[in-house]
Amino acid sequence: MQKVLRELTVDLGERSYPIVIGQGLLGAFDLTPWVVGSQVMIVTNDTVAPLYLENAKACFPGKTVDVVVLPDGEKYKDWQTLNLIFDALLEKRHTRKTTIAALGGGVVGDMAGFAAATYQRGVPFIQIPTTLLSQVDSSVGGKTGINHPLGKNMVGAFHQPQAVLIDADTLGTLPPREVSAGLAEVIKYGLIRDEPFLGWLEQNMDALLSLDATALGEAIHRSCQCKADVVAQDEKEGGLRAILNLGHTFGHAIETFAGYGNWLHGEAVGTGMMMAADLSVREGNLTPEDRARAVNLIGRASLPSMAPEGMTSEDFMALMAVDKKNVDGALRLVLLRALGDAYVTAEASVDNLQATLQAFIR
Amino acid sequence: MQKVLRELTVDLGERSYPIVIGQGLLGAFDLTPWVVGSQVMIVTNDTVAPLYLENAKACFPGKTVDVVVLPDGEKYKDWQTLNLIFDALLEKRHTRKTTIAALGGGVVGDMAGFAAATYQRGVPFIQIPTTLLSQVDSSVGGKTGINHPLGKNMVGAFHQPQAVLIDADTLGTLPPREVSAGLAEVIKYGLIRDEPFLGWLEQNMDALLSLDATALGEAIHRSCQCKADVVAQDEKEGGLRAILNLGHTFGHAIETFAGYGNWLHGEAVGTGMMMAADLSVREGNLTPEDRARAVNLIGRASLPSMAPEGMTSEDFMALMAVDKKNVDGALRLVLLRALGDAYVTAEASVDNLQATLQAFIR
Repeated sequence: MQKVLRELTVDLGERSYPIVIGQGLLGAFDLTPWVVGSQVMIVTNDTVAPLYLENAKACFPGKTVDVVVLPDGEKYKDWQTLNLIFDALLEKRHTRKTTIAALGGGVVGDMAGFAAATYQRGVPFIQIPTTLLSQVDSSVGGKTGINHPLGKNMVGAFHQPQAVLIDADTLGTLPPREVSAGLAEVIKYGLIRDEPFLGWLEQNMDALLSLDATALGEAIHRSCQCKADVVAQDEKEGGLRAILNLGHTFGHAIETFAGYGNWLHGEAVGTGMMMAADLSVREGNLTPEDRARAVNLIGRASLPSMAPEGMTSEDFMALMAVDKKNVDGALRLVLLRALGDAYVTAEASVDNLQATLQAFIR
Repeated sequence: MQKVLRELTVDLGERSYPIVIGQGLLGAFDLTPWVVGSQVMIVTNDTVAPLYLENAKACFPGKTVDVVVLPDGEKYKDWQTLNLIFDALLEKRHTRKTTIAALGGGVVGDMAGFAAATYQRGVPFIQIPTTLLSQVDSSVGGKTGINHPLGKNMVGAFHQPQAVLIDADTLGTLPPREVSAGLAEVIKYGLIRDEPFLGWLEQNMDALLSLDATALGEAIHRSCQCKADVVAQDEKEGGLRAILNLGHTFGHAIETFAGYGNWLHGEAVGTGMMMAADLSVREGNLTPEDRARAVNLIGRASLPSMAPEGMTSEDFMALMAVDKKNVDGALRLVLLRALGDAYVTAEASVDNLQATLQAFIR
């Protein structure tokens, strides 16, 4: 039965949009108020399609719904796979009044969103995220894109969806490893902006890992609210929004080193946040006790606590040098002044950075 | 010697930008006021580079200037060639504060602009158009993109430049066929919005074909002003801007049929405008005398007056069906109420359209 648990708005003026969080929404919730024309193209992957495609189609009564099914996995987040979406849109004669709907995790959302940003110079799209990570993070905020062999998410666009529909029931089919990966981003919001939420997470981590619906609803809502607040203040990452990248500079280096898809994005971010906390202590901001609290919580979410086998500090330095946050060659990192208080800096000491890298390589 | 002939502004609020038109600007004009960071990536092609690259570099004193040279031609307006720009940006570690400069014709401008729109989700760019067509049309207005095997410019973005620098001296090295192609777009402005300009063109066509600097400066200025006015009123083609596509629906079909690059874009648009004028007469709007005036002027610019060998009306119908202007399956065309007065319609009679197609196929 359809049950809307929470609803919130990402406030971006004329580009504002709702996030609807609930249970039993797929197959029941009517998304047609957010569809401009008569055509809908659902973009999904071969893991999600057998589970949720038919229910997703039912959210667009009276529309012409076409489907493109991509191979599942971060390693397919490339131009070649993106082009399958363009092929389908053109073969089915979708016009610039079409609406693209992303049904799946972060990879599907990023690719479908980028296709929407660039098909005929931009068409509307709707996010229907089915993984915890995409529900709490990537489906909100309008970042879209694909990977380049030399760096993650290097080609993309800002393109806000018309609406985000989150059905927490989809988490019932999610592998535990992906639940943990999603929790990394949930914990991130506590670390960067919301110390009380960290306390809540410490109390509810077991409920979250066992997929308790009430706990998940609360965690998703609080995460989306935090992200929406930050995005509303800084849509295109001129400043504040960069704090959402806590752990991501280290994390992207890990993902690239490991080969896309071998480490999940959230897993790499989990380790990356431990590294950021560690560097924050060395920089004289965070207390060792707070670092321990952060590391423990991330560990309780079953996230890895060391860099991949064989990855050296030289690997980190080389891979971090292409991070999008860098300006004119200077490495920029998100660090913590305290739990719940993040900042961006290009001034971290090279010695401290090296010490942190040494502490996390094997 | 550097000589600024004209200067105008494309008025788009915080995205406004100047168009500087002159002679001797390449090698002399200082573009650094429009460069945000320390890095510049000049994108050009292997025809233009030997002629103007060194002078273009001199427009960025004190900046780190890197270069990527693409193969010349519309057939390279694809993802693979676009990726050469991303490769260069990443290999040279260009950050999101880099500025991309497009030095060349419409293909270089569209591709460099699309790379700028999507590299790290968007970086600034500058247009330095070196062909008449790009100077009077494609460098102004922010349309960027690449072709897809199933349709021209099907993947792209709106991304406005920081500035447009037009050095009319570059037309001295332009093959006559490309001068004619550029004149097609110049004539277009007269046909859609500026009947007096048509009269001026009738008087100055010989001067333009012989590359008289004063005449060219006037034609470029008046064309850019017309385009800037239309774009300022309708940046993302919600309505009015579509009139800039006079002749383009027929023209894109011709280009796709002929194979990208075999007919120049402007050549296809020239024939397409004759076809639009013809259909406008059949629709009972334009007088046969005005059609003759339009056809004569286009012909005097040495533009082709028939569809390519072997192209049938079925080819036209199939290829026009994927045009970006179409909405929910209906073919939309730009037609003329009178010389200097264009409109967009989805109501043209199928019989009249067929008669026009028959009149232009061989």
